[in-house]
Amino acid sequence: MPVTLRELAERFGCELHGDGEIAVSRVGTLSGAGPDAVSFLANPAFRRQLGATRAAAVILEERYRGECPVASLVTPKPYVTYARVAALLAPPRTVEPGVHPSAVVGAGSVLGPGAAVGPQAAIGAGCRIGAGVVVGAGCVIGDGVEIGAESRLAPRVTVLEGARIGERCILHPGVVIGADGFGFAHDGGQWVKIPQTGGVVIGNDVEIGANTTIDRGAIEDTVIEDGVKIDNLVQIAHNVRIGAHTVMAGMSGVAGSTRIGRRCMIAGGAVVSNALDICDDVVITIRSIVTRSIDAPGTYSGALPAEVAPEWRRNAVRFKHLDALAERLRAVERALARRAGEQEQDDEQ
Amino acid sequence: MPVTLRELAERFGCELHGDGEIAVSRVGTLSGAGPDAVSFLANPAFRRQLGATRAAAVILEERYRGECPVASLVTPKPYVTYARVAALLAPPRTVEPGVHPSAVVGAGSVLGPGAAVGPQAAIGAGCRIGAGVVVGAGCVIGDGVEIGAESRLAPRVTVLEGARIGERCILHPGVVIGADGFGFAHDGGQWVKIPQTGGVVIGNDVEIGANTTIDRGAIEDTVIEDGVKIDNLVQIAHNVRIGAHTVMAGMSGVAGSTRIGRRCMIAGGAVVSNALDICDDVVITIRSIVTRSIDAPGTYSGALPAEVAPEWRRNAVRFKHLDALAERLRAVERALARRAGEQEQDDEQ
Amino acid sequence: MPVTLRELAERFGCELHGDGEIAVSRVGTLSGAGPDAVSFLANPAFRRQLGATRAAAVILEERYRGECPVASLVTPKPYVTYARVAALLAPPRTVEPGVHPSAVVGAGSVLGPGAAVGPQAAIGAGCRIGAGVVVGAGCVIGDGVEIGAESRLAPRVTVLEGARIGERCILHPGVVIGADGFGFAHDGGQWVKIPQTGGVVIGNDVEIGANTTIDRGAIEDTVIEDGVKIDNLVQIAHNVRIGAHTVMAGMSGVAGSTRIGRRCMIAGGAVVSNALDICDDVVITIRSIVTRSIDAPGTYSGALPAEVAPEWRRNAVRFKHLDALAERLRAVERALARRAGEQEQDDEQ
Repeated sequence: MPVTLRELAERFGCELHGDGEIAVSRVGTLSGAGPDAVSFLANPAFRRQLGATRAAAVILEERYRGECPVASLVTPKPYVTYARVAALLAPPRTVEPGVHPSAVVGAGSVLGPGAAVGPQAAIGAGCRIGAGVVVGAGCVIGDGVEIGAESRLAPRVTVLEGARIGERCILHPGVVIGADGFGFAHDGGQWVKIPQTGGVVIGNDVEIGANTTIDRGAIEDTVIEDGVKIDNLVQIAHNVRIGAHTVMAGMSGVAGSTRIGRRCMIAGGAVVSNALDICDDVVITIRSIVTRSIDAPGTYSGALPAEVAPEWRRNAVRFKHLDALAERLRAVERALARRAGEQEQDDEQ
Repeated sequence: MPVTLRELAERFGCELHGDGEIAVSRVGTLSGAGPDAVSFLANPAFRRQLGATRAAAVILEERYRGECPVASLVTPKPYVTYARVAALLAPPRTVEPGVHPSAVVGAGSVLGPGAAVGPQAAIGAGCRIGAGVVVGAGCVIGDGVEIGAESRLAPRVTVLEGARIGERCILHPGVVIGADGFGFAHDGGQWVKIPQTGGVVIGNDVEIGANTTIDRGAIEDTVIEDGVKIDNLVQIAHNVRIGAHTVMAGMSGVAGSTRIGRRCMIAGGAVVSNALDICDDVVITIRSIVTRSIDAPGTYSGALPAEVAPEWRRNAVRFKHLDALAERLRAVERALARRAGEQEQDDEQ
Repeated sequence: MPVTLRELAERFGCELHGDGEIAVSRVGTLSGAGPDAVSFLANPAFRRQLGATRAAAVILEERYRGECPVASLVTPKPYVTYARVAALLAPPRTVEPGVHPSAVVGAGSVLGPGAAVGPQAAIGAGCRIGAGVVVGAGCVIGDGVEIGAESRLAPRVTVLEGARIGERCILHPGVVIGADGFGFAHDGGQWVKIPQTGGVVIGNDVEIGANTTIDRGAIEDTVIEDGVKIDNLVQIAHNVRIGAHTVMAGMSGVAGSTRIGRRCMIAGGAVVSNALDICDDVVITIRSIVTRSIDAPGTYSGALPAEVAPEWRRNAVRFKHLDALAERLRAVERALARRAGEQEQDDEQ
């Protein structure tokens, strides 16, 4: 469904430069877009590709307009505008409502209008599935689960008993919501399981990446607040709370009972230890390890970048003697101070 | 099913203080429990919440009894007792025995009395599924698999051909048992697959977290001994052996052919390299990397905690020159020693 | 199906020493093999087990032949030859062609001759499934997916809309191909989803481990070239390209838009940050973090190994003051230089 540049400009509040009757039907990169696509310039690193673009038009800031060889849609927020244009041109696939004949739906479960349940899905008893919800092929939904309107579960998602998921959420394949938290009491060399009797509550507009796991609480609930975005292969342990609009990139993790504030950004592979309190607006950079609570917004780092192996090894070996090295430095400082004292005495004599 | 405090005290060997006729029907945290719940004090960090609890009773050690405003169940092991009380009050959901009509069971597979196979599950041929076993919705069990009595597979678990799982195990959603190990021979710039012909043997009372993967052996078996507890998103490579009653927290991993001893504790995100031997009673702390065998019980660490970014960067840059810094210190020490020698000579002259 | 040593020698170009009529039916380790098994010596660490082996024969290099107490198959590449022998003795299980009655296949999907679709699988509309392809139990294949001849999908693999998979690929359980990449634009404290409209293209002879995730591109495709081997629980973000014959071990990851060269080796737990360019023939060692592009082949490292906890702590504490320590060393150097200058002046006077 092609859309004219004029329509895009009006709908998304852009200033149009060029022929408004040109129609586009997809988005493209500056280098890859053809004359049926609209592109964008959000990251200045791609500025040098602007002059040669063959896109129908480019979404960009006013300051780059002079360099644009084609039509432009000028806006102070080109990336957000691109996101909205792309969503208009490539809307989520419409799914035929209804329950596939191969799916199983338990007693007392209620599906809202327009909800769709894919092939081979299994929904337990007493669930409340909201209007327009999509439950993908092969999903398993436990008893008593609630899923809010317009949420979309990709194929092969698991949501266990009693979990509550808000509206407009997106859960990708392999996600597991509500498995038991990891809790055991030690008793004479063996481990006794702590029953995990809490639940999981997920707010509205949450997106959860493929094969990510969010455990149920031990007693109270694990909570993911509104607007949180979680990438693939992320681990959220029991009793965690993730504040609204926080993002967590792939392979990151949060250990049990830790609270993460609002609008935090946790980069790929970063982990936050258990029973901590991380305040709002904290950025944790790639692969960092947080072992103490953080009460001041800001950026926190903890990763050493890889080096050519022999160089790395030379330094890594020294690290093993860093304490001794510091002691040696202290000894040198003392010797110098003693000498300086002697010198002074000599000078005075 | 409410239980009186007297019954709990008798069943779990506690000393009861307060009205034994009070009945409780759930567990709760010190701060969250209402008058129908029993709570516990195991971690001294929560001691300050004891005085204000509204629980019906608290499981605690004798030394805290004086601070408890409600009835108490006194025991030297409050956490273990809490685990047992919680299990009594919230037993695993009973599952109706039998094979769901949508499930598929292969030829020659035998199900023990009371076993249950959920909707959309697929069980191969020649399997032996023990008494009381639960195979959750959407599970896939390969040919010739054995699962011991009372084990519970959550929905969407995969157990591939020939794997053997003991009794009373718990496997959470997304677990994959018996995928091929990662083995390839290098041949002229390409990789030739090493067929993975070994199996997986899992002992009794093992719990395995969501989306965790345990590969089959290359020739012999990958072995998880009795009582091992493994968290979510953990990787166990081919030919690994995990000793009895060892615990592995989320996102940890063990590379091929490594043996982990008994009663070890491997914290979140820690990894153990391949072909190592880790003795019994070793603790590996969060995100540590073990690259050598360990033959002495004890605690091993290897993670640098995150710092405020500018501080971290200042130190990280210095790390890249740590070897040079150590050499410079050595030069300073030599200069001082030379000077001291000269001084001595001067003094002697 | 037993095979004689003579047949193995002829088929795989080995020099046979010993009785060529001996038949073997399996492979075994040097220590575990019985008289019906052929073993191999590829890693010199196992050389000491050679003298006591009870195998029917051993595949080894000429230089070890003298130590072999049984028949031998001599080759300069014992590991590759072992791989080929093992594949001959333990071929992939043959699967009965056809679609299991419980599976669902969408309109317009075409299955090549000999293709097999397992129980509870769900294949979308308009797919092209090549000759001899195996789609395991519980797999979900989206609309318009193409899978090349002889590829094997283990149970519970997910391949989403439009993904293209080459020939002879092996995908292990829980793999997710084509979930949305992690892309959001920031708009006034909230995140706006960037529609992920690209695809995933996977070459021939690619193997992908259990629960690994490979996201679709944001606009263009995520690409895995021929012969790439990926282990379990690996994350490949959107727009990534992995060059031919590269291997990635368990729990490693590549962030968005990064290109990895050909014949690279990325060890367990290593991560490569986003928008980087890694050239051909790069080795990244265990758990390293790559944050800059690499344009020279070679080995790159970045992990500090675990130490006994008190030792580690002593050094880790010093790391927090490494910059200050370097500054103190500089001050000492200056003081010494000043003193040396004074000394020289003294000497000159």
